[in-house]
Amino acid sequence: MEGSVQEHPYVPRDLKLPGFVPCLLSQSNIVGVYGISSLLVVSLIWLLSGLTHMILEGYFAFSPEFYKDKTGFYLAEVWKEYSKGDSRYAARDAGVVAVEGLTAVLEGPACLLAVYAIAMGKSYSYILQFAISLGQLYGTAVYFITSYLEGDNFAASSYYYYAYYVGANASWVVIPTLISIRCWKKICAAVQVQVQGQKKTKVR
Amino acid sequence: MEGSVQEHPYVPRDLKLPGFVPCLLSQSNIVGVYGISSLLVVSLIWLLSGLTHMILEGYFAFSPEFYKDKTGFYLAEVWKEYSKGDSRYAARDAGVVAVEGLTAVLEGPACLLAVYAIAMGKSYSYILQFAISLGQLYGTAVYFITSYLEGDNFAASSYYYYAYYVGANASWVVIPTLISIRCWKKICAAVQVQVQGQKKTKVR
Repeated sequence: MEGSVQEHPYVPRDLKLPGFVPCLLSQSNIVGVYGISSLLVVSLIWLLSGLTHMILEGYFAFSPEFYKDKTGFYLAEVWKEYSKGDSRYAARDAGVVAVEGLTAVLEGPACLLAVYAIAMGKSYSYILQFAISLGQLYGTAVYFITSYLEGDNFAASSYYYYAYYVGANASWVVIPTLISIRCWKKICAAVQVQVQGQKKTKVR
Repeated sequence: MEGSVQEHPYVPRDLKLPGFVPCLLSQSNIVGVYGISSLLVVSLIWLLSGLTHMILEGYFAFSPEFYKDKTGFYLAEVWKEYSKGDSRYAARDAGVVAVEGLTAVLEGPACLLAVYAIAMGKSYSYILQFAISLGQLYGTAVYFITSYLEGDNFAASSYYYYAYYVGANASWVVIPTLISIRCWKKICAAVQVQVQGQKKTKVR
């Protein structure tokens, strides 16, 4: 085990790795950095999703004349483009503005708080995620039901209807549903444990 | 302590109660019946509040022509009268119909389930009450915001504006807020206990 053949820790033992250089950093160092980086990336995605609400939907909620923009300002362009799937955005439909306003003003900041709560393991983490998810689901329900009641004729073509109106909003049904089911289960389990604990204490 | 003077269990001991007749039923009997009756009354109120959503708001959501009713049908009369405070009900505003539809179809049955869950001490009791309360709050927010965006000019007079539009809806802000704060605290406490329990188990 000298010269060109360097010992390695892998299995099978007879695997030949000429010129192998062992880990220079410790295991805890490597795994720790990896874990923290992963957490940062996930947090960043969460943070961005919260900021998405605040910036993208906040701009829409408080810019009634976005469709008159001539500067090519990106946020105005986004909503001009999305209005091809649902012209109620350009028409300033009250239901749409109310839902997007609530999303921007309440749920955006709540998402940022949720990132913090999850990272710090706060006890209100699950109930906050549940509240945000339910808000998203309720808002999406109002969004689709009002469109249905008003005739469901707001898309420039069936392409835009399915790509923007249905497709882009599907994630606002699927993801909050999954999160709220998860939180519901976690919270029920915690309450169950506490109730059983109290019963035991009383019996003693 | 004989003849006309009957001993009684009350304080002060020298209190005179001529002709006093002691309890004929046992303490557990009296307190038990009282407790069950109270529970029934409270449950009945809850049940009625759930049925209110399903019957009153369900009728509105699925009866677009209620204001043409000539028979004096009570549910039609209710919405004809309420429309004096908010004519969007008679005008079939999509936002109002969407919110009332969700309330009747989802929250009404959820209220009935909550009565059952509270009575049986189910572990999902708090999270269900929280979900219903949040739905009520979101719906009420959409209700008021859409009215504001559409000009807030739907009441027949300022009397109907404050009595019906503001007053009758105030309870849909106050009560769900109180319930959701209570549930939030209960759930956080339960999660906290569970997290601490897990930490202790790990340390062992």
